[in-house]
Amino acid sequence: MAKWENRNDGLEANFQFKNFQEALCFVNKVGKLAEIQDHHPDIQLHHYNKVHIRMTTHEFSNTISEKDIRLSQAISRLFP
Amino acid sequence: MAKWENRNDGLEANFQFKNFQEALCFVNKVGKLAEIQDHHPDIQLHHYNKVHIRMTTHEFSNTISEKDIRLSQAISRLFP
Repeated sequence: MAKWENRNDGLEANFQFKNFQEALCFVNKVGKLAEIQDHHPDIQLHHYNKVHIRMTTHEFSNTISEKDIRLSQAISRLFP
Repeated sequence: MAKWENRNDGLEANFQFKNFQEALCFVNKVGKLAEIQDHHPDIQLHHYNKVHIRMTTHEFSNTISEKDIRLSQAISRLFP
């Protein structure tokens, strides 16, 4: 289960995969959710198989809003 | 044209797109090149439409190698 942390007024979580291909596949799934929810997190694919996600709500001066909670929950459900 | 910079023993470049979807499409193209060349850069999709790429060669104690030069050139050719 993904562990989201409140850091610098944003929600952040780390995910680890078997290889680069699976990590990239996850990035695309997150991207689809972001488009559906019209809320775009920062996504970092690093060290071959790790993905770091950070989201905050710019409209509310970079605070965590209902949008962040909803997207983080949807992303958590993606993670195998 | 992409402008690559040598920073902290790695090659880095920034790319900007019209929207999130185009940025994500670019990330996937970079991912395909990475798989073909078996060399995986760190890819950061941030602020909706921006992509930051950083690569270094771990086998050579994090220095810039021929692999980085080759991949950076291939990525540059992708950029519209």
